[in-house]
Amino acid sequence: MKVTVIGLGPGGGADLTGRAREALAACDLIVGYTAYIELVKKDFPEKEVLSTGMRREVDRCRAAVEAALTGRDVAVVCSGDSGVYGMAGLVYEVAREYDPIDIEVVPGITAACGGAALLGAPLTHDFAVISLSDLLTPWDLIERRLSCAAQADFVICLYNPSSHSRPDYLRRACGILLREKSPDTVCGYVRNIGREGEEAHTLTLGELRDTQVDMFTTVFIGSSKTGLLGGKMVTPRGYLQRNG
Amino acid sequence: MKVTVIGLGPGGGADLTGRAREALAACDLIVGYTAYIELVKKDFPEKEVLSTGMRREVDRCRAAVEAALTGRDVAVVCSGDSGVYGMAGLVYEVAREYDPIDIEVVPGITAACGGAALLGAPLTHDFAVISLSDLLTPWDLIERRLSCAAQADFVICLYNPSSHSRPDYLRRACGILLREKSPDTVCGYVRNIGREGEEAHTLTLGELRDTQVDMFTTVFIGSSKTGLLGGKMVTPRGYLQRNG
Repeated sequence: MKVTVIGLGPGGGADLTGRAREALAACDLIVGYTAYIELVKKDFPEKEVLSTGMRREVDRCRAAVEAALTGRDVAVVCSGDSGVYGMAGLVYEVAREYDPIDIEVVPGITAACGGAALLGAPLTHDFAVISLSDLLTPWDLIERRLSCAAQADFVICLYNPSSHSRPDYLRRACGILLREKSPDTVCGYVRNIGREGEEAHTLTLGELRDTQVDMFTTVFIGSSKTGLLGGKMVTPRGYLQRNG
Repeated sequence: MKVTVIGLGPGGGADLTGRAREALAACDLIVGYTAYIELVKKDFPEKEVLSTGMRREVDRCRAAVEAALTGRDVAVVCSGDSGVYGMAGLVYEVAREYDPIDIEVVPGITAACGGAALLGAPLTHDFAVISLSDLLTPWDLIERRLSCAAQADFVICLYNPSSHSRPDYLRRACGILLREKSPDTVCGYVRNIGREGEEAHTLTLGELRDTQVDMFTTVFIGSSKTGLLGGKMVTPRGYLQRNG
């Protein structure tokens, strides 16, 4: 009689933590978006699953809470981390409408961390994470966050940089950042982290503005200190500078 | 002849990913800060280790690169993620001074994600991660980042909020945030994530200003949308609001 919201990491499998693997092994039912259920079924083929399509997030969380109320231990699975743009918040929100149940959140490797590892070490200093999806967030708030993040000289990690219905959002975001940042700013993007077709690229902010990415892509924009070292995107923490 | 920079997650053990565990099992030598080596030795008691004290980060990375150049496979271990304020960036920087070697980064659960899971779901929307340590970063840049993050209405996660030499930094940071944010803003802090003595607390920003925390603490400051649901700190993503 519990819902555990589990982050699978970017690709499931080798990215799973021991804690996530134990929680999946212990549950009675796994609930999730169809593509993430496929990731889990490889490792837990015997488990009962309930999968729902894209944009059925509320239904999915209700189904999980209702199954828990019948006495079952339910796992809700998310790609990446369960807490970063994941289902953890929605499970807490939906559960308020029902009798009290136990909810536990098991974190996973989010795309910011998984993607950074492929590019080098872009997040070794302060950073901001922003989703470019305006399905649930007004675009003017996204613009304000981009502008403030650029003024703060954060490294910026962009989730949901593009989709079929928003093909030009990364270009618009880069335009806002270019008001504050040099077109030579070191950037990178990763695609299909931890999955088949995994790729990582570095480029300048000027080049990024003219690059078409898809919804499986995570984008990194360097701070003024971020550089390229042997092809890797690295933001120095400052140790070498301190030591001379 | 390779250096793998591995994030152990907040507490090591159950927080390790499968990929991190495999990399530790495969290496010849594990290099790290004394406290993190202790975390690893529980699971890999037979491995050769080289531990160094606090603030010996550059020496540690040099030792790892030099051992790799003698033909060994070396793991550098970090608490949390290897890329978020971890050693990944410094390994790339130090390695430039030597003949080329292979470097791989294996991500781990960073304190932002591990701590968020304990508090509820504070990071379900855009957020900024800022270290309050001014050992390597000028305080005026930290102030600017705090101020911009508050203007952007990010959820803010603070690393290194305090130390013996900086007992009042969290108070100063809260003072800056309070210029933009309500004293009723929902906040939380976690201590010893994934370790003995793990604890999580929620409170208001006004209360947080008058709270003394230590160097094992990670602090979360909500956005204007963050609320308390049954004692948990939750930032709505907006699904329920969209659906009615």
